[in-house]
Amino acid sequence: MNRELLISQIKKKKSFLCIGLDTDFTKIPSHLLSSKDPIFNFNKAIIDATCDLCVAYKPNIAFYESMGSKGWDSLKKTLDYIPKDIFTIADAKRGDIGNTSSMYAKTFFEYMDFDSITVSPYMGSDSVLPFLNYKNKWVILLALTSNVGSQDFQNIISSNNKNIFEEVIEISKNWGTNKNMMYVVGATQVSYLSKIRRIIPDHFLLIPGVGAQGGDIDSVVKNAINKDCGLLVNSSRNIIYASSDVDFADQARIQAKILQEKMSLILTQEGI
Amino acid sequence: MNRELLISQIKKKKSFLCIGLDTDFTKIPSHLLSSKDPIFNFNKAIIDATCDLCVAYKPNIAFYESMGSKGWDSLKKTLDYIPKDIFTIADAKRGDIGNTSSMYAKTFFEYMDFDSITVSPYMGSDSVLPFLNYKNKWVILLALTSNVGSQDFQNIISSNNKNIFEEVIEISKNWGTNKNMMYVVGATQVSYLSKIRRIIPDHFLLIPGVGAQGGDIDSVVKNAINKDCGLLVNSSRNIIYASSDVDFADQARIQAKILQEKMSLILTQEGI
Repeated sequence: MNRELLISQIKKKKSFLCIGLDTDFTKIPSHLLSSKDPIFNFNKAIIDATCDLCVAYKPNIAFYESMGSKGWDSLKKTLDYIPKDIFTIADAKRGDIGNTSSMYAKTFFEYMDFDSITVSPYMGSDSVLPFLNYKNKWVILLALTSNVGSQDFQNIISSNNKNIFEEVIEISKNWGTNKNMMYVVGATQVSYLSKIRRIIPDHFLLIPGVGAQGGDIDSVVKNAINKDCGLLVNSSRNIIYASSDVDFADQARIQAKILQEKMSLILTQEGI
Repeated sequence: MNRELLISQIKKKKSFLCIGLDTDFTKIPSHLLSSKDPIFNFNKAIIDATCDLCVAYKPNIAFYESMGSKGWDSLKKTLDYIPKDIFTIADAKRGDIGNTSSMYAKTFFEYMDFDSITVSPYMGSDSVLPFLNYKNKWVILLALTSNVGSQDFQNIISSNNKNIFEEVIEISKNWGTNKNMMYVVGATQVSYLSKIRRIIPDHFLLIPGVGAQGGDIDSVVKNAINKDCGLLVNSSRNIIYASSDVDFADQARIQAKILQEKMSLILTQEGI
Protein backbone atom coordinates (compact mmCIF):
# COMPACT_ATOMS: atom_id res chain seq x y z
CA MET A 1 0.00 0.00 0.00
CA ASN A 2 1.36 3.46 -0.81
CA ARG A 3 1.31 6.54 1.40
CA GLU A 4 -1.53 8.23 -0.49
CA LEU A 5 -3.87 5.28 -0.06
CA LEU A 6 -3.05 5.00 3.64
CA ILE A 7 -3.80 8.69 4.20
CA SER A 8 -7.03 8.46 2.19
CA GLN A 9 -8.16 5.50 4.33
CA ILE A 10 -7.47 7.48 7.51
CA LYS A 11 -9.60 10.36 6.21
CA LYS A 12 -12.37 8.09 4.94
CA LYS A 13 -12.67 6.01 8.11
CA LYS A 14 -11.91 8.92 10.46
CA SER A 15 -9.51 6.60 12.22
CA PHE A 16 -5.81 6.01 12.69
CA LEU A 17 -6.36 2.89 14.73
CA CYS A 18 -4.15 -0.16 14.30
CA ILE A 19 -5.38 -3.34 15.96
CA GLY A 20 -2.70 -5.73 17.20
CA LEU A 21 -3.51 -9.36 16.54
CA ASP A 22 -1.46 -10.81 19.43
CA THR A 23 -3.56 -13.93 19.29
CA ASP A 24 -2.68 -16.18 22.20
CA PHE A 25 -4.01 -19.74 22.11
CA THR A 26 -4.37 -19.73 25.93
CA LYS A 27 -6.63 -16.66 25.82
CA ILE A 28 -9.00 -17.67 23.04
CA PRO A 29 -12.61 -18.14 24.20
CA SER A 30 -13.18 -21.80 24.95
CA HIS A 31 -16.07 -22.21 22.49
CA LEU A 32 -13.60 -21.69 19.62
CA LEU A 33 -11.08 -24.29 20.75
CA SER A 34 -12.89 -27.23 19.19
CA SER A 35 -12.79 -25.64 15.72
CA LYS A 36 -10.20 -26.74 13.17
CA ASP A 37 -8.20 -23.51 13.33
CA PRO A 38 -9.06 -21.60 16.53
CA ILE A 39 -6.41 -18.91 15.93
CA PHE A 40 -7.76 -18.06 12.47
CA ASN A 41 -11.37 -18.25 13.60
CA PHE A 42 -10.65 -15.88 16.47
CA ASN A 43 -8.89 -13.42 14.12
CA LYS A 44 -11.66 -13.70 11.52
CA ALA A 45 -14.29 -12.75 14.11
CA ILE A 46 -12.17 -9.83 15.34
CA ILE A 47 -11.60 -8.63 11.76
CA ASP A 48 -15.30 -8.94 10.87
CA ALA A 49 -16.22 -6.94 13.98
CA THR A 50 -13.64 -4.15 13.61
CA CYS A 51 -12.55 -3.72 9.99
CA ASP A 52 -14.65 -0.60 9.44
CA LEU A 53 -13.11 1.07 12.50
CA CYS A 54 -9.37 0.60 11.93
CA VAL A 55 -6.91 1.33 9.13
CA ALA A 56 -4.29 -1.27 10.05
CA TYR A 57 -3.89 -4.75 11.55
CA LYS A 58 -0.65 -5.82 13.18
CA PRO A 59 -0.23 -9.55 13.75
CA ASN A 60 2.50 -10.14 16.32
CA ILE A 61 4.53 -12.89 14.68
CA ALA A 62 5.80 -14.37 17.97
CA PHE A 63 2.32 -15.58 18.85
CA TYR A 64 1.96 -17.49 15.56
CA GLU A 65 5.51 -18.89 15.59
CA SER A 66 4.92 -20.36 19.03
CA MET A 67 2.31 -22.66 17.47
CA GLY A 68 4.83 -24.06 14.99
CA SER A 69 3.98 -24.69 11.36
CA LYS A 70 0.24 -24.66 12.14
CA GLY A 71 0.67 -21.15 13.50
CA TRP A 72 2.24 -20.04 10.23
CA ASP A 73 -0.74 -21.43 8.34
CA SER A 74 -3.12 -19.54 10.66
CA LEU A 75 -1.10 -16.35 10.08
CA LYS A 76 -1.20 -16.71 6.30
CA LYS A 77 -4.94 -17.36 6.33
CA THR A 78 -5.45 -14.31 8.57
CA LEU A 79 -3.42 -12.10 6.27
CA ASP A 80 -5.32 -13.31 3.22
CA TYR A 81 -8.59 -12.56 5.02
CA ILE A 82 -7.77 -8.92 5.87
CA PRO A 83 -9.47 -6.56 3.33
CA LYS A 84 -6.93 -5.18 0.83
CA ASP A 85 -7.61 -1.54 1.72
CA ILE A 86 -6.34 -2.12 5.27
CA PHE A 87 -2.62 -1.65 5.94
CA THR A 88 -0.91 -4.76 7.32
CA ILE A 89 2.10 -4.86 9.62
CA ALA A 90 4.17 -7.96 10.33
CA ASP A 91 5.32 -7.18 13.86
CA ALA A 92 8.42 -9.32 13.60
CA LYS A 93 11.31 -7.07 14.72
CA ARG A 94 13.69 -8.82 12.34
CA GLY A 95 17.09 -7.63 11.12
CA ASP A 96 20.26 -9.51 10.15
CA ILE A 97 23.14 -9.34 7.67
CA GLY A 98 22.13 -8.52 4.09
CA ASN A 99 21.59 -11.98 2.65
CA THR A 100 19.56 -12.98 5.72
CA SER A 101 17.42 -9.84 5.79
CA SER A 102 16.69 -10.55 2.11
CA MET A 103 15.29 -13.90 3.20
CA TYR A 104 13.12 -12.26 5.86
CA ALA A 105 11.89 -9.78 3.23
CA LYS A 106 11.04 -12.72 0.97
CA THR A 107 9.04 -14.31 3.79
CA PHE A 108 6.93 -11.31 4.71
CA PHE A 109 6.68 -9.54 1.34
CA GLU A 110 6.55 -12.49 -1.09
CA TYR A 111 5.52 -15.73 0.64
CA MET A 112 3.11 -13.54 2.60
CA ASP A 113 1.92 -10.21 1.26
CA PHE A 114 2.32 -7.86 4.23
CA ASP A 115 2.50 -4.12 3.51
CA SER A 116 5.18 -3.59 6.13
CA ILE A 117 7.44 -5.19 8.72
CA THR A 118 8.90 -3.94 11.99
CA VAL A 119 12.72 -4.07 11.93
CA SER A 120 15.32 -3.69 14.67
CA PRO A 121 18.04 -1.13 13.81
CA TYR A 122 20.94 -2.58 15.81
CA MET A 123 22.75 -4.17 12.84
CA GLY A 124 22.61 -1.01 10.72
CA SER A 125 21.96 -0.07 7.12
CA ASP A 126 22.67 -3.34 5.31
CA SER A 127 20.27 -5.16 7.65
CA VAL A 128 17.44 -2.77 6.69
CA LEU A 129 18.00 -1.98 3.01
CA PRO A 130 16.87 -5.39 1.63
CA PHE A 131 13.36 -4.65 2.93
CA LEU A 132 13.32 -1.32 1.05
CA ASN A 133 13.82 -2.94 -2.35
CA TYR A 134 10.10 -3.72 -2.64
CA LYS A 135 7.67 -1.25 -4.22
CA ASN A 136 4.91 -0.02 -1.90
CA LYS A 137 6.28 -2.01 1.02
CA TRP A 138 7.44 -0.38 4.22
CA VAL A 139 10.05 -0.76 6.94
CA ILE A 140 8.83 0.29 10.38
CA LEU A 141 12.08 0.78 12.29
CA LEU A 142 12.29 0.55 16.08
CA ALA A 143 13.26 3.95 17.46
CA LEU A 144 11.99 4.39 21.02
CA THR A 145 9.98 1.45 22.28
CA SER A 146 7.24 1.39 24.90
CA ASN A 147 8.83 -1.00 27.40
CA VAL A 148 10.91 -0.31 30.51
CA GLY A 149 14.00 -1.84 28.87
CA SER A 150 13.98 0.95 26.27
CA GLN A 151 15.96 2.92 28.92
CA ASP A 152 18.89 0.50 28.76
CA PHE A 153 20.33 1.41 25.36
CA GLN A 154 17.90 3.62 23.40
CA ASN A 155 18.33 6.43 25.92
CA ILE A 156 22.12 6.30 26.22
CA ILE A 157 23.58 9.74 25.45
CA SER A 158 26.07 9.81 22.58
CA SER A 159 29.17 11.99 22.38
CA ASN A 160 27.09 14.25 20.07
CA ASN A 161 24.79 14.81 23.08
CA LYS A 162 21.96 12.91 21.44
CA ASN A 163 20.01 9.89 22.65
CA ILE A 164 20.79 6.71 20.74
CA PHE A 165 17.20 6.62 19.45
CA GLU A 166 17.78 10.08 17.95
CA GLU A 167 20.97 8.86 16.28
CA VAL A 168 19.00 5.90 14.93
CA ILE A 169 16.33 8.15 13.44
CA GLU A 170 18.76 10.74 12.05
CA ILE A 171 21.04 8.21 10.39
CA SER A 172 18.33 5.86 9.12
CA LYS A 173 15.97 8.49 7.70
CA ASN A 174 18.26 8.75 4.68
CA TRP A 175 18.02 5.03 3.91
CA GLY A 176 14.49 5.47 2.60
CA THR A 177 11.83 8.15 2.45
CA ASN A 178 8.58 9.01 4.20
CA LYS A 179 6.94 6.85 1.55
CA ASN A 180 8.61 3.60 2.64
CA MET A 181 9.79 4.12 6.21
CA MET A 182 7.95 4.61 9.50
CA TYR A 183 9.24 4.55 13.07
CA VAL A 184 8.05 2.81 16.23
CA VAL A 185 7.70 5.25 19.13
CA GLY A 186 5.98 4.01 22.28
CA ALA A 187 2.94 5.86 23.61
CA THR A 188 4.68 5.74 26.98
CA GLN A 189 7.39 8.06 25.61
CA VAL A 190 5.40 11.27 25.05
CA SER A 191 8.10 13.53 26.49
CA TYR A 192 10.31 12.68 23.50
CA LEU A 193 7.69 12.93 20.76
CA SER A 194 8.22 16.62 19.92
CA LYS A 195 11.97 16.03 19.66
CA ILE A 196 11.33 13.15 17.26
CA ARG A 197 8.90 15.23 15.20
CA ARG A 198 11.59 17.87 14.71
CA ILE A 199 13.83 15.22 13.08
CA ILE A 200 11.12 13.53 11.02
CA PRO A 201 8.15 15.90 10.65
CA ASP A 202 6.53 13.97 7.80
CA HIS A 203 7.13 10.28 8.56
CA PHE A 204 4.40 8.09 9.92
CA LEU A 205 4.91 6.87 13.49
CA LEU A 206 3.60 3.55 14.72
CA ILE A 207 2.64 4.11 18.34
CA PRO A 208 2.18 1.01 20.50
CA GLY A 209 1.62 1.08 24.23
CA VAL A 210 -1.86 2.62 24.40
CA GLY A 211 -4.07 0.63 26.76
CA ALA A 212 -2.50 -2.34 28.58
CA GLN A 213 0.90 -0.62 28.64
CA GLY A 214 -0.48 2.65 30.02
CA GLY A 215 0.03 5.15 27.17
CA ASP A 216 -2.43 8.00 26.67
CA ILE A 217 -3.74 8.82 23.19
CA ASP A 218 -4.40 12.54 23.79
CA SER A 219 -0.82 13.22 24.87
CA VAL A 220 0.48 11.30 21.87
CA VAL A 221 -1.66 13.26 19.44
CA LYS A 222 -0.81 16.62 21.00
CA ASN A 223 2.90 16.02 20.45
CA ALA A 224 3.02 14.03 17.25
CA ILE A 225 0.13 14.56 14.84
CA ASN A 226 1.04 16.21 11.52
CA LYS A 227 -0.92 17.55 8.53
CA ASP A 228 -1.46 14.04 7.09
CA CYS A 229 -2.17 12.63 10.56
CA GLY A 230 1.15 10.72 10.43
CA LEU A 231 0.14 8.36 13.19
CA LEU A 232 -0.92 4.77 13.53
CA VAL A 233 -1.90 4.17 17.14
CA ASN A 234 -1.95 0.52 18.09
CA SER A 235 -4.05 -1.24 20.68
CA SER A 236 -3.91 -5.01 21.07
CA ARG A 237 -4.94 -6.62 24.33
CA ASN A 238 -7.52 -3.99 25.35
CA ILE A 239 -9.46 -4.72 22.16
CA ILE A 240 -8.99 -8.38 21.30
CA TYR A 241 -9.30 -9.63 24.89
CA ALA A 242 -12.07 -7.25 25.97
CA SER A 243 -14.07 -10.39 26.74
CA SER A 244 -13.07 -14.04 26.98
CA ASP A 245 -16.63 -15.20 26.41
CA VAL A 246 -18.83 -15.85 23.37
CA ASP A 247 -19.34 -12.08 23.03
CA PHE A 248 -15.60 -11.41 22.53
CA ALA A 249 -16.00 -9.95 19.04
CA ASP A 250 -18.86 -7.63 20.09
CA GLN A 251 -16.85 -6.44 23.07
CA ALA A 252 -13.79 -5.95 20.85
CA ARG A 253 -15.91 -3.77 18.57
CA ILE A 254 -17.08 -1.68 21.52
CA GLN A 255 -13.48 -1.03 22.61
CA ALA A 256 -12.34 -0.30 19.05
CA LYS A 257 -15.30 2.04 18.58
CA ILE A 258 -14.37 4.03 21.70
CA LEU A 259 -10.91 4.65 20.26
CA GLN A 260 -12.17 5.34 16.74
CA GLU A 261 -14.67 7.94 17.99
CA LYS A 262 -11.90 9.66 19.91
CA MET A 263 -9.78 9.62 16.75
CA SER A 264 -12.64 10.91 14.61
CA LEU A 265 -13.01 13.90 16.93
CA ILE A 266 -9.26 14.56 16.86
CA LEU A 267 -9.09 14.39 13.06
CA THR A 268 -12.02 16.78 12.75
CA GLN A 269 -10.43 19.18 15.23
CA GLU A 270 -7.17 19.03 13.28
CA GLY A 271 -8.98 19.61 9.97
CA ILE A 272 -7.77 16.32 8.51
CA MET B 1 23.21 -27.98 27.36
CA ASN B 2 25.25 -26.60 30.26
CA ARG B 3 28.64 -24.90 30.12
CA GLU B 4 30.57 -27.90 31.45
CA LEU B 5 29.23 -30.22 28.75
CA LEU B 6 29.99 -27.69 26.02
CA ILE B 7 33.58 -27.31 27.22
CA SER B 8 34.00 -31.08 27.50
CA GLN B 9 32.80 -31.50 23.92
CA ILE B 10 35.29 -28.90 22.71
CA LYS B 11 38.11 -30.79 24.43
CA LYS B 12 36.92 -34.19 23.26
CA LYS B 13 36.46 -33.22 19.62
CA LYS B 14 39.41 -30.79 19.55
CA SER B 15 37.11 -28.36 17.85
CA PHE B 16 35.24 -25.13 18.51
CA LEU B 17 33.60 -25.15 15.12
CA CYS B 18 29.97 -24.12 14.68
CA ILE B 19 28.44 -24.92 11.30
CA GLY B 20 25.78 -22.52 10.07
CA LEU B 21 22.84 -24.24 8.43
CA ASP B 22 21.80 -21.33 6.16
CA THR B 23 20.03 -23.76 3.91
CA ASP B 24 18.83 -21.97 0.79
CA PHE B 25 16.40 -23.82 -1.45
CA THR B 26 17.92 -22.16 -4.53
CA LYS B 27 21.40 -23.49 -3.67
CA ILE B 28 20.54 -27.11 -2.89
CA PRO B 29 22.09 -29.62 -5.33
CA SER B 30 19.54 -30.41 -8.01
CA HIS B 31 19.51 -34.17 -7.35
CA LEU B 32 17.88 -33.49 -3.96
CA LEU B 33 15.07 -31.32 -5.28
CA SER B 34 12.82 -34.22 -6.23
CA SER B 35 12.85 -35.62 -2.68
CA LYS B 36 9.93 -34.99 -0.34
CA ASP B 37 11.85 -32.59 1.93
CA PRO B 38 14.94 -31.27 0.12
CA ILE B 39 15.86 -28.85 2.94
CA PHE B 40 15.89 -31.58 5.56
CA ASN B 41 17.65 -34.07 3.30
CA PHE B 42 20.36 -31.51 2.55
CA ASN B 43 20.82 -30.78 6.27
CA LYS B 44 20.81 -34.48 7.15
CA ALA B 45 23.63 -35.15 4.69
CA ILE B 46 25.63 -32.17 6.01
CA ILE B 47 25.12 -33.30 9.61
CA ASP B 48 26.08 -36.91 8.81
CA ALA B 49 29.24 -35.68 7.09
CA THR B 50 30.37 -33.18 9.74
CA CYS B 51 28.95 -34.04 13.18
CA ASP B 52 32.25 -35.47 14.47
CA LEU B 53 34.09 -32.28 13.49
CA CYS B 54 31.94 -29.55 15.05
CA VAL B 55 30.51 -28.80 18.49
CA ALA B 56 27.58 -26.65 17.36
CA TYR B 57 25.05 -26.23 14.55
CA LYS B 58 23.39 -22.89 13.89
CA PRO B 59 20.30 -22.97 11.66
CA ASN B 60 19.60 -19.47 10.34
CA ILE B 61 15.86 -19.17 10.94
CA ALA B 62 15.27 -16.70 8.07
CA PHE B 63 16.04 -19.39 5.51
CA TYR B 64 13.41 -21.76 6.95
CA GLU B 65 10.77 -19.06 7.49
CA SER B 66 11.05 -18.06 3.84
CA MET B 67 9.66 -21.51 2.94
CA GLY B 68 6.53 -20.95 5.04
CA SER B 69 5.06 -23.66 7.24
CA LYS B 70 6.93 -26.37 5.29
CA GLY B 71 10.17 -24.62 6.21
CA TRP B 72 9.25 -24.79 9.89
CA ASP B 73 8.67 -28.51 9.57
CA SER B 74 12.08 -28.94 7.88
CA LEU B 75 13.67 -26.92 10.70
CA LYS B 76 12.05 -29.01 13.42
CA LYS B 77 13.09 -32.26 11.72
CA THR B 78 16.64 -30.93 11.37
CA LEU B 79 16.82 -29.98 15.03
CA ASP B 80 15.51 -33.38 16.10
CA TYR B 81 18.15 -35.05 13.91
CA ILE B 82 21.15 -33.21 15.42
CA PRO B 83 22.91 -35.45 17.99
CA LYS B 84 22.08 -34.37 21.56
CA ASP B 85 25.74 -33.76 22.51
CA ILE B 86 26.00 -30.99 19.91
CA PHE B 87 25.09 -27.45 20.96
CA THR B 88 22.27 -25.93 18.89
CA ILE B 89 21.76 -22.25 18.13
CA ALA B 90 18.56 -20.75 16.73
CA ASP B 91 19.99 -17.82 14.80
CA ALA B 92 16.83 -15.79 15.02
CA LYS B 93 17.90 -12.36 16.34
CA ARG B 94 14.60 -11.95 18.14
CA GLY B 95 13.72 -9.51 20.93
CA ASP B 96 10.49 -7.73 21.86
CA ILE B 97 8.53 -6.55 24.92
CA GLY B 98 8.34 -9.09 27.75
CA ASN B 99 5.14 -10.96 26.89
CA THR B 100 6.28 -11.28 23.26
CA SER B 101 9.82 -12.40 24.05
CA SER B 102 8.21 -15.05 26.29
CA MET B 103 6.40 -16.31 23.19
CA TYR B 104 9.63 -16.43 21.20
CA ALA B 105 11.26 -18.33 24.09
CA LYS B 106 8.36 -20.77 24.02
CA THR B 107 8.87 -21.29 20.28
CA PHE B 108 12.59 -21.99 20.36
CA PHE B 109 12.97 -23.60 23.81
CA GLU B 110 9.68 -25.53 24.13
CA TYR B 111 8.04 -26.14 20.74
CA MET B 112 11.57 -26.71 19.49
CA ASP B 113 14.37 -27.75 21.82
CA PHE B 114 17.23 -25.42 20.86
CA ASP B 115 20.01 -24.91 23.41
CA SER B 116 20.28 -21.22 22.60
CA ILE B 117 18.93 -18.32 20.59
CA THR B 118 20.55 -15.15 19.22
CA VAL B 119 18.82 -12.04 20.56
CA SER B 120 19.03 -8.37 19.56
CA PRO B 121 19.72 -6.06 22.53
CA TYR B 122 18.00 -2.90 21.26
CA MET B 123 14.86 -3.22 23.40
CA GLY B 124 16.80 -3.81 26.63
CA SER B 125 16.55 -6.02 29.69
CA ASP B 126 12.88 -7.01 29.67
CA SER B 127 13.21 -8.15 26.05
CA VAL B 128 16.04 -10.54 27.00
CA LEU B 129 15.14 -11.81 30.48
CA PRO B 130 12.27 -14.13 29.38
CA PHE B 131 14.82 -16.25 27.49
CA LEU B 132 16.95 -16.61 30.65
CA ASN B 133 14.16 -18.26 32.64
CA TYR B 134 14.96 -21.66 31.13
CA LYS B 135 17.46 -24.02 32.77
CA ASN B 136 20.48 -24.89 30.60
CA LYS B 137 19.28 -22.62 27.80
CA TRP B 138 21.32 -19.69 26.56
CA VAL B 139 20.90 -16.19 25.19
CA ILE B 140 23.52 -15.22 22.62
CA LEU B 141 23.26 -11.43 22.56
CA LEU B 142 24.35 -9.35 19.57
CA ALA B 143 27.26 -7.15 20.58
CA LEU B 144 29.45 -6.30 17.59
CA THR B 145 28.28 -7.90 14.36
CA SER B 146 30.32 -8.85 11.31
CA ASN B 147 28.55 -6.70 8.71
CA VAL B 148 29.38 -3.24 7.38
CA GLY B 149 26.22 -1.80 8.99
CA SER B 150 27.63 -2.60 12.44
CA GLN B 151 29.39 0.78 12.11
CA ASP B 152 26.10 2.68 12.04
CA PHE B 153 25.02 2.31 15.67
CA GLN B 154 27.17 -0.30 17.46
CA ASN B 155 30.24 1.92 17.11
CA ILE B 156 28.66 5.20 18.17
CA ILE B 157 30.63 6.69 21.08
CA SER B 158 28.64 7.31 24.23
CA SER B 159 29.09 10.22 26.64
CA ASN B 160 31.01 7.72 28.83
CA ASN B 161 33.51 7.48 25.97
CA LYS B 162 32.53 3.90 25.23
CA ASN B 163 31.26 2.31 22.04
CA ILE B 164 27.60 1.34 22.18
CA PHE B 165 28.55 -2.33 21.83
CA GLU B 166 30.67 -1.95 25.00
CA GLU B 167 27.71 -0.40 26.80
CA VAL B 168 25.58 -3.31 25.62
CA ILE B 169 28.05 -5.86 26.98
CA GLU B 170 28.69 -4.04 30.28
CA ILE B 171 25.03 -3.49 31.08
CA SER B 172 23.73 -6.87 29.89
CA LYS B 173 26.41 -9.05 31.49
CA ASN B 174 24.58 -8.64 34.81
CA TRP B 175 21.29 -9.97 33.39
CA GLY B 176 22.66 -13.51 33.38
CA THR B 177 25.96 -15.28 33.93
CA ASN B 178 28.67 -16.91 31.84
CA LYS B 179 26.59 -20.08 32.18
CA ASN B 180 23.58 -18.74 30.27
CA MET B 181 24.80 -15.82 28.17
CA MET B 182 27.18 -15.58 25.23
CA TYR B 183 27.86 -12.66 22.87
CA VAL B 184 28.06 -12.36 19.09
CA VAL B 185 31.27 -10.68 17.96
CA GLY B 186 32.08 -10.73 14.26
CA ALA B 187 35.38 -12.23 13.09
CA THR B 188 35.76 -9.07 11.01
CA GLN B 189 36.07 -7.05 14.26
CA VAL B 190 39.38 -8.38 15.63
CA SER B 191 40.66 -4.94 16.65
CA TYR B 192 37.95 -4.81 19.32
CA LEU B 193 38.27 -8.35 20.64
CA SER B 194 40.82 -7.63 23.38
CA LYS B 195 38.67 -4.75 24.63
CA ILE B 196 35.68 -7.08 24.79
CA ARG B 197 37.69 -9.76 26.60
CA ARG B 198 38.59 -7.24 29.30
CA ILE B 199 34.86 -6.74 30.01
CA ILE B 200 33.83 -10.39 29.77
CA PRO B 201 36.91 -12.59 30.21
CA ASP B 202 34.96 -15.80 30.86
CA HIS B 203 31.91 -15.63 28.58
CA PHE B 204 31.71 -17.64 25.40
CA LEU B 205 31.76 -15.61 22.19
CA LEU B 206 29.98 -16.73 19.04
CA ILE B 207 32.16 -15.55 16.17
CA PRO B 208 30.53 -15.42 12.73
CA GLY B 209 32.17 -13.96 9.66
CA VAL B 210 34.96 -16.47 9.07
CA GLY B 211 35.07 -17.48 5.40
CA ALA B 212 32.60 -15.82 3.02
CA GLN B 213 32.61 -12.62 5.08
CA GLY B 214 36.43 -12.43 5.20
CA GLY B 215 37.27 -12.98 8.88
CA ASP B 216 40.51 -14.72 9.87
CA ILE B 217 40.50 -17.44 12.53
CA ASP B 218 44.08 -16.95 13.75
CA SER B 219 43.55 -13.27 14.54
CA VAL B 220 40.32 -14.13 16.36
CA VAL B 221 41.97 -16.77 18.49
CA LYS B 222 44.98 -14.61 19.32
CA ASN B 223 42.74 -11.91 20.77
CA ALA B 224 39.87 -13.85 22.29
CA ILE B 225 40.66 -17.40 23.39
CA ASN B 226 40.46 -18.03 27.14
CA LYS B 227 41.32 -20.94 29.44
CA ASP B 228 38.11 -22.82 28.57
CA CYS B 229 38.46 -21.89 24.89
CA GLY B 230 35.44 -19.57 25.21
CA LEU B 231 34.89 -19.44 21.47
CA LEU B 232 32.45 -20.87 18.97
CA VAL B 233 33.67 -19.95 15.50
CA ASN B 234 30.98 -20.21 12.87
CA SER B 235 31.32 -20.97 9.19
CA SER B 236 28.26 -21.37 6.99
CA ARG B 237 28.50 -20.88 3.25
CA ASN B 238 32.15 -22.00 2.89
CA ILE B 239 31.21 -25.39 4.30
CA ILE B 240 27.66 -26.17 3.26
CA TYR B 241 28.04 -24.83 -0.29
CA ALA B 242 31.57 -26.11 -0.89
CA SER B 243 30.06 -27.99 -3.84
CA SER B 244 26.69 -27.76 -5.54
CA ASP B 245 27.02 -31.24 -6.96
CA VAL B 246 26.31 -34.78 -5.74
CA ASP B 247 29.54 -34.64 -3.71
CA PHE B 248 28.33 -31.65 -1.63
CA ALA B 249 28.48 -33.49 1.69
CA ASP B 250 31.98 -34.88 1.04
CA GLN B 251 33.20 -31.43 0.06
CA ALA B 252 31.52 -29.92 3.14
CA ARG B 253 33.41 -32.45 5.27
CA ILE B 254 36.71 -31.49 3.63
CA GLN B 255 36.14 -27.80 4.41
CA ALA B 256 34.99 -28.54 7.97
CA LYS B 257 38.01 -30.79 8.48
CA ILE B 258 40.41 -28.01 7.41
CA LEU B 259 38.95 -25.74 10.10
CA GLN B 260 38.79 -28.49 12.74
CA GLU B 261 42.45 -29.42 12.21
CA LYS B 262 43.43 -25.78 12.59
CA MET B 263 41.37 -25.64 15.80
CA SER B 264 42.88 -28.88 17.09
CA LEU B 265 46.35 -27.42 16.70
CA ILE B 266 45.31 -24.20 18.44
CA LEU B 267 43.72 -26.04 21.37
CA THR B 268 46.85 -28.17 21.79
CA GLN B 269 49.08 -25.10 21.67
CA GLU B 270 46.88 -23.42 24.29
CA GLY B 271 46.93 -26.51 26.51
CA ILE B 272 43.14 -26.92 26.39
